[in-house]
Amino acid sequence: MRIIIEKNYEEMSKTVMYQLLAKMYEDKKMNIAITAGSSPKRMYELLTEVIKDKREFPNVTFYNFDEIPYAKKQSEGVTISNLRRDFFTPANIPESMIHKLTPENFKEHDAYLRSVGGLDAIFLGIGGDGHFCGNLPGTTKFGDETVEVFYPKELIDVMAGEVGGMDELTPSYFTMGPRAVMNVKEVVMFATGKKKANIIKEAMFGPVSETCPSSIFQLHPNFTLILDEEAASEIKELL
Amino acid sequence: MRIIIEKNYEEMSKTVMYQLLAKMYEDKKMNIAITAGSSPKRMYELLTEVIKDKREFPNVTFYNFDEIPYAKKQSEGVTISNLRRDFFTPANIPESMIHKLTPENFKEHDAYLRSVGGLDAIFLGIGGDGHFCGNLPGTTKFGDETVEVFYPKELIDVMAGEVGGMDELTPSYFTMGPRAVMNVKEVVMFATGKKKANIIKEAMFGPVSETCPSSIFQLHPNFTLILDEEAASEIKELL
Amino acid sequence: MRIIIEKNYEEMSKTVMYQLLAKMYEDKKMNIAITAGSSPKRMYELLTEVIKDKREFPNVTFYNFDEIPYAKKQSEGVTISNLRRDFFTPANIPESMIHKLTPENFKEHDAYLRSVGGLDAIFLGIGGDGHFCGNLPGTTKFGDETVEVFYPKELIDVMAGEVGGMDELTPSYFTMGPRAVMNVKEVVMFATGKKKANIIKEAMFGPVSETCPSSIFQLHPNFTLILDEEAASEIKELL
Amino acid sequence: MRIIIEKNYEEMSKTVMYQLLAKMYEDKKMNIAITAGSSPKRMYELLTEVIKDKREFPNVTFYNFDEIPYAKKQSEGVTISNLRRDFFTPANIPESMIHKLTPENFKEHDAYLRSVGGLDAIFLGIGGDGHFCGNLPGTTKFGDETVEVFYPKELIDVMAGEVGGMDELTPSYFTMGPRAVMNVKEVVMFATGKKKANIIKEAMFGPVSETCPSSIFQLHPNFTLILDEEAASEIKELL
Repeated sequence: MRIIIEKNYEEMSKTVMYQLLAKMYEDKKMNIAITAGSSPKRMYELLTEVIKDKREFPNVTFYNFDEIPYAKKQSEGVTISNLRRDFFTPANIPESMIHKLTPENFKEHDAYLRSVGGLDAIFLGIGGDGHFCGNLPGTTKFGDETVEVFYPKELIDVMAGEVGGMDELTPSYFTMGPRAVMNVKEVVMFATGKKKANIIKEAMFGPVSETCPSSIFQLHPNFTLILDEEAASEIKELL
Repeated sequence: MRIIIEKNYEEMSKTVMYQLLAKMYEDKKMNIAITAGSSPKRMYELLTEVIKDKREFPNVTFYNFDEIPYAKKQSEGVTISNLRRDFFTPANIPESMIHKLTPENFKEHDAYLRSVGGLDAIFLGIGGDGHFCGNLPGTTKFGDETVEVFYPKELIDVMAGEVGGMDELTPSYFTMGPRAVMNVKEVVMFATGKKKANIIKEAMFGPVSETCPSSIFQLHPNFTLILDEEAASEIKELL
Repeated sequence: MRIIIEKNYEEMSKTVMYQLLAKMYEDKKMNIAITAGSSPKRMYELLTEVIKDKREFPNVTFYNFDEIPYAKKQSEGVTISNLRRDFFTPANIPESMIHKLTPENFKEHDAYLRSVGGLDAIFLGIGGDGHFCGNLPGTTKFGDETVEVFYPKELIDVMAGEVGGMDELTPSYFTMGPRAVMNVKEVVMFATGKKKANIIKEAMFGPVSETCPSSIFQLHPNFTLILDEEAASEIKELL
Repeated sequence: MRIIIEKNYEEMSKTVMYQLLAKMYEDKKMNIAITAGSSPKRMYELLTEVIKDKREFPNVTFYNFDEIPYAKKQSEGVTISNLRRDFFTPANIPESMIHKLTPENFKEHDAYLRSVGGLDAIFLGIGGDGHFCGNLPGTTKFGDETVEVFYPKELIDVMAGEVGGMDELTPSYFTMGPRAVMNVKEVVMFATGKKKANIIKEAMFGPVSETCPSSIFQLHPNFTLILDEEAASEIKELL
């Protein structure tokens, strides 16, 4: 495990961006899964500035690693929609560089990834409950590959908010499970803010357990954690 | 996970040997941890035939991954002694190619491995209880790096046999823990015989759980399992 | 440059075979170009013993790196025919694992290789004149990728013998040029016998020059040379 | 060969900087040789902004690849002095991250590099005469590793200017030769401006020949060329 601590959100965003750019610049086919959400927003802005209109990444394919479908809208799900809004559209990423995980293809997702040589890198955040991708405590097991997860009761209100109301909620969402993510060659996790300080400590220095899904990354041979000072505030004395 | 099934112990031993030889022939520094025990005996005989007196492996260092000390003998422990008997001595491996994990250095073992760039490969077997290295169910946690394990009561008789009687038994042994082994770049596990068929199924297709330590390898991004037909007999219909 | 010296042809053949097997066992797509000819005959016999009927190489594709067409026979050329006879047929290599360089596709060969991520390894011999593949002195330039070579006058008799008489001779043959071979990630060259001792010295310790095409490998970042004692007899004092 | 064309010096400098940063962020020991001179000045300014005071590169060592000694000054040579002025000093690079090639150690430089696993990357420019590092046409051969070069007569005036007058000129300088540079795992060359357009065309699309030393990179399996529009102006129709 490599831990990099930057002084604030802006600097952390830059460092994550440089790491992602480093992967994009490798001179071979690169399959990279990336996260939607609020933590990476600044990172995508910075990356967009750098790569917008550049055409020097012919070997890169981007993947989403989870998807939350809408019930009624004839449209793509929450994750891909957010990735488009925050990154693909402003950065002019062509469709040919995007591979979508969807409710229709999730059953073949793991086999597909194997057929293209696997994911080379995944960039993801961590939830206050220790979740990564859609692996909330209690929803998946360490041994799960890509799966459909039926919303547990306690999640329904949260998720209804995410999709814009109870009307838009389907019974399930889709996510690469812990095993699928552990099979990625390189894992980069990042976190910002005081509110993540405790879970970072628990996930990285507590027991490896399904009750804190992100603790699994203690076991990955090529794992990098990028934090700002606040997110790192509970672990600084342990380093 | 890659699974290779050979028709019998002899063929399995050859395939493991070719994999080990492949690592030894890489044209860069290679740190390789290898197992003692009965399963690899034939593999070491075959390897000895191939490499005896060859001097073309200047970049290879071999490591043991656990050690069981003797109480009285002024000598090396059980693991290194067996590796010498079965491989290092007959193959004329020079001392400069051997790095020993010992009761004296185990606390610095993980830091040492990091300082040399980590282990490139580990070759290990699986116990009927799902253990690997010295990680018997109940003795270590997934999050453990290299640790000292005090013999649980139920192990004392077994271990006394291993060291040659109760007189030679110390209170503890030493082992790379699950986290330390998961940090190795490539893991090769092998097993032979009907008696391993059930645990192979449980470890590779059952839940990932500390009650079956080897189940952790479902999570390793570069894991190869080499079996003979008998050891594979319970999983053939799952492949 | 790594130089490995074995005591005789048999031992050299084994070491080349282990190196080739090492490539075949890597757990990713592997594109491997291999040589026809007399030097590798024993190596292919040994490899055939090891892999015949094994089905554990789903990721390997074999390539020829040159081709000499027949004028009349409705058949494949000399190189692929010899590879079939000496290796593909006895080892039961399925057609799906063979990609042929032919007079029909040579113009797209370099672009094709780029589209599949390039060759991972090439195994080749050296001629008494310093040639490798079809790069005889005077026929190609260091900067050539895959090319058609029109037989120079002094070669016509030799080549007529190769194809079975003047009647079968076409005006040209096809070969990966020096630049195409230098683009391979790893190059393994091997040679046997007293008759190669002088050219080995010239190619590996003399000037890098198109007059001795194999001297180019002094410049490859991942080059291994495997010799028997006789082929190494002129360079032993230089090592 | 990968060719990346940016619209001007500023954009080219950024792209080179991202490539160098990508190497610096790899999670393993990285040995990186870098160039002094005027072309990289802006790149070092940009890099300095990014990494100044960052302490997250514990695995990086920087190397100079040539050195021009002063005759009288009790000081370091021209190359290291310029690297300090343009990069090491403003970016606060600690001495522990710098390995100097000097007149005193040049004879052991190649062996030293081998002992640390070789250089992982080299970043270099190209001269109007096709030179790279200190490999001016006529001074070194393709087969040279690190060497001492005695100034040819026609260079003496130029070099006297470089060191600050004839008084400071020694009879020779030191450089990694073509073979030493070809042994680096990845080569990144960059060039800016109209004045480089012709030599870029000759080096990358003309014959591979010692009369244009940089033409050797046509033969490197992992070579990236980064240009601005002006430097690329003579090759755009060839791509």
